[in-house]
Amino acid sequence: MTSAYLKQRPGNQLFDAYFTAQGMREIFSDRGRVQGMLDFEAALARAEAATGVIPQVAVAAIETACHAERYDFAALAEAIAVAGNSAIPLVKALGKVIASGVPEAERYVHLGATSQDAMDTGLVLQLRAALALIETDLARLTDALARQAQTYAETPLAGRTWLQHATPVTLGMKIAGWLGALNRHRERLQELKPRLLTLQFGGASGTLAALGDKALPVAEALAAELKLTLPEQPWHTQRDRLVEFASVLGMIAGSLGKLGRDVSLLMQTEAAEVFEPSAPGKGGSSTMPHKRNPVGAAVLIGAATRVPGLLATLFAAMPQEHERSLGLWHAEWETLPEICCLVSGALRQAQIIADGLEVDAERMRRNLDLTQGLVLAEAVSIVLAQRLGRDHAHHLLETCCKRAVAEQRHLRAVLGDDPQVSAELSPDELDRLLDPAHYLGQARAWVERALAEHHRVNA
Amino acid sequence: MTSAYLKQRPGNQLFDAYFTAQGMREIFSDRGRVQGMLDFEAALARAEAATGVIPQVAVAAIETACHAERYDFAALAEAIAVAGNSAIPLVKALGKVIASGVPEAERYVHLGATSQDAMDTGLVLQLRAALALIETDLARLTDALARQAQTYAETPLAGRTWLQHATPVTLGMKIAGWLGALNRHRERLQELKPRLLTLQFGGASGTLAALGDKALPVAEALAAELKLTLPEQPWHTQRDRLVEFASVLGMIAGSLGKLGRDVSLLMQTEAAEVFEPSAPGKGGSSTMPHKRNPVGAAVLIGAATRVPGLLATLFAAMPQEHERSLGLWHAEWETLPEICCLVSGALRQAQIIADGLEVDAERMRRNLDLTQGLVLAEAVSIVLAQRLGRDHAHHLLETCCKRAVAEQRHLRAVLGDDPQVSAELSPDELDRLLDPAHYLGQARAWVERALAEHHRVNA
Amino acid sequence: MTSAYLKQRPGNQLFDAYFTAQGMREIFSDRGRVQGMLDFEAALARAEAATGVIPQVAVAAIETACHAERYDFAALAEAIAVAGNSAIPLVKALGKVIASGVPEAERYVHLGATSQDAMDTGLVLQLRAALALIETDLARLTDALARQAQTYAETPLAGRTWLQHATPVTLGMKIAGWLGALNRHRERLQELKPRLLTLQFGGASGTLAALGDKALPVAEALAAELKLTLPEQPWHTQRDRLVEFASVLGMIAGSLGKLGRDVSLLMQTEAAEVFEPSAPGKGGSSTMPHKRNPVGAAVLIGAATRVPGLLATLFAAMPQEHERSLGLWHAEWETLPEICCLVSGALRQAQIIADGLEVDAERMRRNLDLTQGLVLAEAVSIVLAQRLGRDHAHHLLETCCKRAVAEQRHLRAVLGDDPQVSAELSPDELDRLLDPAHYLGQARAWVERALAEHHRVNA
Amino acid sequence: MTSAYLKQRPGNQLFDAYFTAQGMREIFSDRGRVQGMLDFEAALARAEAATGVIPQVAVAAIETACHAERYDFAALAEAIAVAGNSAIPLVKALGKVIASGVPEAERYVHLGATSQDAMDTGLVLQLRAALALIETDLARLTDALARQAQTYAETPLAGRTWLQHATPVTLGMKIAGWLGALNRHRERLQELKPRLLTLQFGGASGTLAALGDKALPVAEALAAELKLTLPEQPWHTQRDRLVEFASVLGMIAGSLGKLGRDVSLLMQTEAAEVFEPSAPGKGGSSTMPHKRNPVGAAVLIGAATRVPGLLATLFAAMPQEHERSLGLWHAEWETLPEICCLVSGALRQAQIIADGLEVDAERMRRNLDLTQGLVLAEAVSIVLAQRLGRDHAHHLLETCCKRAVAEQRHLRAVLGDDPQVSAELSPDELDRLLDPAHYLGQARAWVERALAEHHRVNA
Repeated sequence: MTSAYLKQRPGNQLFDAYFTAQGMREIFSDRGRVQGMLDFEAALARAEAATGVIPQVAVAAIETACHAERYDFAALAEAIAVAGNSAIPLVKALGKVIASGVPEAERYVHLGATSQDAMDTGLVLQLRAALALIETDLARLTDALARQAQTYAETPLAGRTWLQHATPVTLGMKIAGWLGALNRHRERLQELKPRLLTLQFGGASGTLAALGDKALPVAEALAAELKLTLPEQPWHTQRDRLVEFASVLGMIAGSLGKLGRDVSLLMQTEAAEVFEPSAPGKGGSSTMPHKRNPVGAAVLIGAATRVPGLLATLFAAMPQEHERSLGLWHAEWETLPEICCLVSGALRQAQIIADGLEVDAERMRRNLDLTQGLVLAEAVSIVLAQRLGRDHAHHLLETCCKRAVAEQRHLRAVLGDDPQVSAELSPDELDRLLDPAHYLGQARAWVERALAEHHRVNA
Repeated sequence: MTSAYLKQRPGNQLFDAYFTAQGMREIFSDRGRVQGMLDFEAALARAEAATGVIPQVAVAAIETACHAERYDFAALAEAIAVAGNSAIPLVKALGKVIASGVPEAERYVHLGATSQDAMDTGLVLQLRAALALIETDLARLTDALARQAQTYAETPLAGRTWLQHATPVTLGMKIAGWLGALNRHRERLQELKPRLLTLQFGGASGTLAALGDKALPVAEALAAELKLTLPEQPWHTQRDRLVEFASVLGMIAGSLGKLGRDVSLLMQTEAAEVFEPSAPGKGGSSTMPHKRNPVGAAVLIGAATRVPGLLATLFAAMPQEHERSLGLWHAEWETLPEICCLVSGALRQAQIIADGLEVDAERMRRNLDLTQGLVLAEAVSIVLAQRLGRDHAHHLLETCCKRAVAEQRHLRAVLGDDPQVSAELSPDELDRLLDPAHYLGQARAWVERALAEHHRVNA
Repeated sequence: MTSAYLKQRPGNQLFDAYFTAQGMREIFSDRGRVQGMLDFEAALARAEAATGVIPQVAVAAIETACHAERYDFAALAEAIAVAGNSAIPLVKALGKVIASGVPEAERYVHLGATSQDAMDTGLVLQLRAALALIETDLARLTDALARQAQTYAETPLAGRTWLQHATPVTLGMKIAGWLGALNRHRERLQELKPRLLTLQFGGASGTLAALGDKALPVAEALAAELKLTLPEQPWHTQRDRLVEFASVLGMIAGSLGKLGRDVSLLMQTEAAEVFEPSAPGKGGSSTMPHKRNPVGAAVLIGAATRVPGLLATLFAAMPQEHERSLGLWHAEWETLPEICCLVSGALRQAQIIADGLEVDAERMRRNLDLTQGLVLAEAVSIVLAQRLGRDHAHHLLETCCKRAVAEQRHLRAVLGDDPQVSAELSPDELDRLLDPAHYLGQARAWVERALAEHHRVNA
Repeated sequence: MTSAYLKQRPGNQLFDAYFTAQGMREIFSDRGRVQGMLDFEAALARAEAATGVIPQVAVAAIETACHAERYDFAALAEAIAVAGNSAIPLVKALGKVIASGVPEAERYVHLGATSQDAMDTGLVLQLRAALALIETDLARLTDALARQAQTYAETPLAGRTWLQHATPVTLGMKIAGWLGALNRHRERLQELKPRLLTLQFGGASGTLAALGDKALPVAEALAAELKLTLPEQPWHTQRDRLVEFASVLGMIAGSLGKLGRDVSLLMQTEAAEVFEPSAPGKGGSSTMPHKRNPVGAAVLIGAATRVPGLLATLFAAMPQEHERSLGLWHAEWETLPEICCLVSGALRQAQIIADGLEVDAERMRRNLDLTQGLVLAEAVSIVLAQRLGRDHAHHLLETCCKRAVAEQRHLRAVLGDDPQVSAELSPDELDRLLDPAHYLGQARAWVERALAEHHRVNA
């Protein structure tokens, strides 16, 4: 690879370090893609030798050639543009490399397989690595969120519905919500694994006819070599296995987007309750020295905005014609990797946020009072309802709330002044009812149940 | 409901009978939606009475009011436009209906719940019915496909890759491919069920604070009443449960789209191998009396084209703010039902196609000869490779194929004339090698494996 | 239409009054769709009579039958499910209605036309009405926004970038941004009109062969009858005219979504600067008597979330096969109307917001001080840069800002205490520099330029 | 740039040569992106010097530093991950490069601008180059299509509706359809240009406050420097200008997808009427030596499948918050370039197809007879209708068509045997009516009208 190569194929990776994780980019690099196909070819040679289809002596020669480093990706890219897929030119190049070593071994490579066998199985091998990365990331992230949920299980802040203050919740409960969704995704990944991690091997039209009665033995040996399951039939134009995986990645992106949205709203100058961890230079503005931009949340929201469209492409590409599609199959090649990379980047940023979350509990308490007690009207209403009847109590509170708003007074003061209320509730009772910490309901229970679920998934 | 009602709310259902199934439309009708919420309210009353939160005597009065027929949907629609969701006006109207019967019972309705509790749980009840419909439809459809796969397990037709003829396959194997994907979807539905069929119940901000220490007992009783599971916590702004279901529906749409695309391509005037069943007036053209349009396949392709965009909406709507979203939640309300309806319609048309598939096996055999034997060049090449070496054989066949094309002769004739080929293969051997029925590889095995899988899923 | 009809075709319109405008729903109702096709048929009869293709006497009989009220939509819906499109059964029914009046006129209906001619031209007629509605709505909305931009041209509030406070802007400038985008959309609608409002008329395969040498004269007369332009050729499978219109609608949805997002963020309890107009019962919560939910903004955000997916469907449906597509064309039928309806609803809500916007300028001023002067650090920095050099000034301000944050003091106080700053800036100068009203830059100029643009588009 | 750089940032460009055009990849490479921002900074320096904001002497020092080659993209990528956008670290690096040359000039760079000013204006400069490429490509492609439409203006082939044979059309007319859509896209690009090619310049919150009363003069000079128009106001969070451009690109992708779909269907082994030009190794299969895969059409269909999802992302990203969005803005950064690249690749492949289209007119004629005359039943029906009445004629033809199908005879023979038909039509008349070349209607007129339109757009 020369500088001409670089010049010829101008890079477009300025945002990679921000939007994606390095490990995932490597899996889906040109090298990763080529190596996936070469791993298929090497395993095929071993499987065919083991079943007597090709001579054992050819295997080493083929295996030796099956290292991505030996191939010129720029030349491959040019050849792909003529051939219409990546396996045809790679198998040609592979043949030449083999022939340059052990000429008589060349004829035994790719025997009975079709391009899509190499491309799809190679992809499944990449996806297995991607899945492992994501599972590790999810395990670490959920552990961190579990810790934080526990830490803040009783830290009250305003509940917000329609972006309006509502009755109080706790930060731990909010985090438990993030945690719960991610643990469900871990379960989903677990469940889809047997459907995803399968061999693709069908030959020209999917019948493996070229291998005669050795077809199933070779297929079984090949699946074993690659530690993949042998599906009930080839799936060249049945793409649900891939789309299912992409869908769960899409759900992860969506859940992380929710986390990012919540954090960025809590970081607003007006709320200032929770912050991404700061770091030198992080989130600074070029013109405003004091700002603290939610640089990580932007990645989460960005991924949650981009993945749905990419997913729609994969779903739209499902109706693939007959035994091999043109165009719809092609639409997958860069789209699925892109989804993996975006989700990996979002997971990385979420980890940073989860690990270093900065919490201003004091500010949360102050913000809870922004409505001057109105968010706790319900607490009073319920107690009064038991004594005065629901309608009466509701009406009474509504009147007091309106008065509090109109007179810009605290609801506690208005209630204290109201003879009907005072007749039922002592000052102490009123103080207690208007203390957010006494109106958190099942917040702790939700946290504990989410933690129990987390431990169950971890087990 | 008067004609004024109809005039005021002009219908838009001209394509319903074509694109959707009647049963699914009913589930997601205004009536279905309202009844779902009312079922929640009635069950809540029972649960709260059972746990001593409200008097037992109020239950009957509430239950009596919980019938959709008692509500004016047009008036509700108007009220929704002011309130911003469907539960607020319904609960108000419900209160009035209760009060008109047993005034003192009115205060006990909806106690401790929030609008979204009623809307989401009502939706889950609708989705449970939708899921049952889809599972039944999938079971029937896969049974039909299994039968057809068996019937045509050895019926050869041209394999087609890139829309070009390739080595032969069988119709049974093609159908087995459709079958396999649909059975995987059945498994997916089975797996997601525990995540989908859960209660939504959290009150104002999700803490159930209004119910005090009766909260969990009420929640448990309510879940039991509705035969839903009690999730580890409310999921007002964690929408993965719904999106997961929609994703599997999207995969079903994609797989049916593939079935529809295959059928419509096989129905082409030039191919004419397979047909949707005919019916009086079906698929006729207004100007061409002889035509036979793939009217059912159009629905399958149409659904596979529409569902991806609708799904993208649901994924994009996942990052819902804080404890209740505005706008993103709203984006779900009509989108998820639309997906259910479109998939139901596609399933119905697929059933018609699967049951009545017309097959012209004779035409398939003739079409297999369209390339004058070229699609079987591989069969010859493989046998020769064993005798002459792979490269030599490949090169020899390539030469013969080019000659066959150039001279517009059948490959059998060209091969018979070639001295090198004749030296290796007798006329009988050549005849056999160029007979598609002898080059079907694992086609039957794939069918049998797909049937075994079908029986496993059925069990 | 009987109650059986209603029962048979369960309505699904609970959210229509909230999400769509009544006028648009009428255009895209079953009645609207049927009338569009009938208008085509009536005009065709007139055009063919004018060009001598059919006898003049047949026209009245056909016209009399071309009223949607005369057709049973439920029966049509059933027939569509068999025929595969809406024109075949309608033309059949139309023939029967004509025959019931003037039997000999029946043979002259739909002459030389194909189903898609009636459906597409009927659709264009509906779209013309839809376009007129949208243009009227946009004109009214932009007028209202122009008024508000002027009213609040000098009302300062915090600029917010990344949801963090930045240097001040004015509310008028923010509104001018909304206004500018909407006026660009008006221009786009103006430009696309000649491409959209064209006749579809090609007959069976698009050649109009059935009309012989009368084809072009009939086409011209038909276009004139309907006040549509005659395109250079039929466009049965070239759908860009429709997709272009949908794209502009999508942009309108996006711009209104931005308006809705801004308003809902400004309505947050913590910001409380701007509000949707209140109305009895509007945005109340079922459990929190004091809340003021952004009920209109939810519609804007909801539309902006739903339309992109619907649009993706229309773009994905563009590659329509040969002379008439199956499936892709079908995918348009309900999708484009849905986009029109959602945008109409968003426009209606935006109008309510724009007309009744409630502004708390006092609160804006207080919020501007939330950072204790930090958002105006830039103003000071610039003046100091001219005296001390950019780097020095920047560094000095950074130090003062950090101190202000650390000591929780107002930047004004910190700056006043700093000897270097005091040496350059008098207390009066500092007061002025830290007054937001003196650091609004071109805010008023932008408003004026946007207003000038508005007047230009209005003209 | 070292090999460590390559290792660190693994390339992912294996499909670039196939799916995209080299020129477009260069525009949207890291280098192109960085140079766009540097062009903004250099022009800003010139504009600010011209208006007296900075000393003239600083300009050369800044300009010298504004060459992308001087920057380490890998280091920038890392810094972007911390800063949250690409301009902050670039401006920092730029400052250092300036300082290393003329230290006192460093303070004058980026004055009064914000990161998004540099990023957006840089993007507009890239888009201007992209637009020029696309316009050139469209001009060449439409010229080629115009030539082909003329060449094949009278070459009949079967019209195909619902993938079923219908009355004949001509290849020229089909090509004219492709041509017409592309010419409309050229008009759209022309119309959007003034909206797209505008300066972004607003400073921190969009008010340009930091430039005081020099703001507008600087903005005007800057726009003039860059040959962009000065918009009525900054558009940091009003993204319709970009989305409009992307929409037209999406329409181009859709129209090219239709072209690709038509060609791939015509290339089917069963149709074999039209072919992409062949080239050594092009479209060969790894296992089937005779195949001719539609390698170019796959790119067209692939782009038409991928772009809708990417577009949906851009539309979904429109509701950007306040004065600068987080996440939604980020979602654009890689999505819009990807659309440009995919469309450029599709245009390249379409050009190859249009230039080298191989046509088998003889096969078209044979295929026209596949229905044994049925596709011309309409021609006979029309003539008979004039003599026997429409219903009678229609019914008569229907009977004959059914008999032809049932007896597997040619319609000509059946009609010739029918006494009613024979009474009206002589054998010569029947022969003529059943000759496709005599039933092409306006096919040539459509071609001529499309060519006239082409010349109008070219002018």
